[in-house]
Amino acid sequence: MSDDENILLSEDQDAVRVLTLNRPKARNCLSMDLMTAVRGGLAEAAETDSVRAVVLTGAGPAFSSGHDLKELTAHRNDPDKGRAFYEETMRTCAEMLLAIVRLPKPVIAAVTGIATAAGCQLVATCDLAVAAIDARFATPGVNIGLFCSTPMVALSRNLSRKAAMEMLLLGEMVGAEDAMRLGLLNRVVAADRVVNEAVAFGRTIASKPGRTLKTGKEAFYRQAEMPLDEAYRYTASVMVENMLDAEAEEGIGAFLEKRTPNWPR
Amino acid sequence: MSDDENILLSEDQDAVRVLTLNRPKARNCLSMDLMTAVRGGLAEAAETDSVRAVVLTGAGPAFSSGHDLKELTAHRNDPDKGRAFYEETMRTCAEMLLAIVRLPKPVIAAVTGIATAAGCQLVATCDLAVAAIDARFATPGVNIGLFCSTPMVALSRNLSRKAAMEMLLLGEMVGAEDAMRLGLLNRVVAADRVVNEAVAFGRTIASKPGRTLKTGKEAFYRQAEMPLDEAYRYTASVMVENMLDAEAEEGIGAFLEKRTPNWPR
Amino acid sequence: MSDDENILLSEDQDAVRVLTLNRPKARNCLSMDLMTAVRGGLAEAAETDSVRAVVLTGAGPAFSSGHDLKELTAHRNDPDKGRAFYEETMRTCAEMLLAIVRLPKPVIAAVTGIATAAGCQLVATCDLAVAAIDARFATPGVNIGLFCSTPMVALSRNLSRKAAMEMLLLGEMVGAEDAMRLGLLNRVVAADRVVNEAVAFGRTIASKPGRTLKTGKEAFYRQAEMPLDEAYRYTASVMVENMLDAEAEEGIGAFLEKRTPNWPR
Repeated sequence: MSDDENILLSEDQDAVRVLTLNRPKARNCLSMDLMTAVRGGLAEAAETDSVRAVVLTGAGPAFSSGHDLKELTAHRNDPDKGRAFYEETMRTCAEMLLAIVRLPKPVIAAVTGIATAAGCQLVATCDLAVAAIDARFATPGVNIGLFCSTPMVALSRNLSRKAAMEMLLLGEMVGAEDAMRLGLLNRVVAADRVVNEAVAFGRTIASKPGRTLKTGKEAFYRQAEMPLDEAYRYTASVMVENMLDAEAEEGIGAFLEKRTPNWPR
Repeated sequence: MSDDENILLSEDQDAVRVLTLNRPKARNCLSMDLMTAVRGGLAEAAETDSVRAVVLTGAGPAFSSGHDLKELTAHRNDPDKGRAFYEETMRTCAEMLLAIVRLPKPVIAAVTGIATAAGCQLVATCDLAVAAIDARFATPGVNIGLFCSTPMVALSRNLSRKAAMEMLLLGEMVGAEDAMRLGLLNRVVAADRVVNEAVAFGRTIASKPGRTLKTGKEAFYRQAEMPLDEAYRYTASVMVENMLDAEAEEGIGAFLEKRTPNWPR
Repeated sequence: MSDDENILLSEDQDAVRVLTLNRPKARNCLSMDLMTAVRGGLAEAAETDSVRAVVLTGAGPAFSSGHDLKELTAHRNDPDKGRAFYEETMRTCAEMLLAIVRLPKPVIAAVTGIATAAGCQLVATCDLAVAAIDARFATPGVNIGLFCSTPMVALSRNLSRKAAMEMLLLGEMVGAEDAMRLGLLNRVVAADRVVNEAVAFGRTIASKPGRTLKTGKEAFYRQAEMPLDEAYRYTASVMVENMLDAEAEEGIGAFLEKRTPNWPR
């Protein structure tokens, strides 16, 4: 693997697409090129019918160390002191994160090593997350004068308020077991099993009917932002359309007849 | 107990009304009739002055297995392929859940056996929940092509985002102790103590002044959906009216005089 | 220390201002005078450049027992039965709490003894909280006919819904370790180390650049109330302005050059 050749690797394990951040020497920091590649990889996964779930991981000792500080600093010499580039960077980053949330297929983070700043944000934003027992997480922007303001969006929607605030104000490393207890992770496993465990999640999910998954993931994030009575009205209507879909007809029929469902295309 | 005679049992233990889902052979699945009976039972509990708290439990080996899939499937033969019936079902279900939230008296789930899909949703929606050590919880709709979209409303407001997503995307069973850790339950006890423990919660609550409980429960769910400054303005006004109520006058007076309060009617 | 002389003590430990509720004989209950003093103390801390973080603690055996019930009761003899005074009290209380949230410097609660009702609310509202192993927390208003409606605002934004509801409906004491598990606290330590531990948090925070902290804390509470896409747009713009600030320039520069940052004023 070379840093220069292909900054995002893509490999399918049956119906699970594994996207690997591949700038190991740069600790997979999120240069504009890498963020653009991730967005492209996600868009391709969305459009590829054979792909039913996505695993996002990193090559080398780090999952991702966050933004590319060298790239950001180089633009301080721009005539506008970097403003245009920083706007493009932060917009691209936000779009990458929203692309995970809006992908009609579940996205599972597989974390070995460190996941810091925008790297920690990637983990918080994925639908599910598996990490190595020695993985570590931080939002250390406060230490370098650049508060982790975008990362706090996903962090504060996953962790309790005081736990998120502690990570953001102190910028210290949090181990995998603490991160699990705080709500950031679904599983903590041995380092050499992380990708396999995430792929196993993906395979299980891939065995479920696809339109149902798409419907459910979309509904989850939409209803989360609604008042209670609106959320019920909305999800009730989602359930009605889901009932009338051929997937529910086959799935419920198979369940009542005690047979394996034969999911329609 | 017969499945046909009375699908919702009602019994008062002093000021605590115990409502028991009573379709044990059908694992207390939520037919239109049962959901309508629950709504009726809740409305009656609301109107009965002697009732101060409600316990919701299930007869037989399951708390509730969710919607009545046979009833839903039978309506696929309707001229509209079931649309009207599914709309009525999902609306009735949402109304039953909102009735729990809006009941001016606390509702406590007492769970033995399994609570799945809309049955898990009932537990998540109650104000408090007690479960047996061997109780199990799941939102397995994804396995039958019918994503648990209504259940996610209460689930995602009780569990952390990744924990809720895991239950919804994988549809696997979660044990009582995990459910407790994740925020779905208040107590895990031996199976034969579940109803007693829930009733004990109810009795304790019943010893508190009634208008104060009504005021507090209503305020809780209303302020939860407000921005912070609006929530403070609203609850400050609630506190002022509460202070001027005879219950606060008696309760605070008794506290300062170190005597037992004699709650006004 | 006398109850009458100075109801709020203020002492600086380097850049950390320690504010001490000082009505120990009255268990630091929040009379109008004390709430006004806290607001004043916070305003002064905000304006004092040398202060970078605030610790809020209580003198004597209690952190704070909540509102001053004697003062409230005395106003029942007012011509309006106390309405005007209760409105002023609740507004002052809400303003004190919002002042913590809006203070451009982190506020850390240091809790020994009991923190009940509006005292528990103070802890829930601070950005971080440290408590003694034998500290206890409750929202017991329900027991005296005055539901803890203002306290529920911060409580329900820190604890899971069922845990908050249990504290509010039952009004029972919760120990420090349970409060930690439920999300109310960041650290539980020996009683004689509580203030030192909170000050240590404050010192660590004080070593971070000040405008960055201000930017981050403000962004945290603002984005928490936004829908996801608006939160990303907002925090992306915050990050751009932060990048263009001299603090980020110095901090990122120092990081890349592997030297200690020399924070600009």
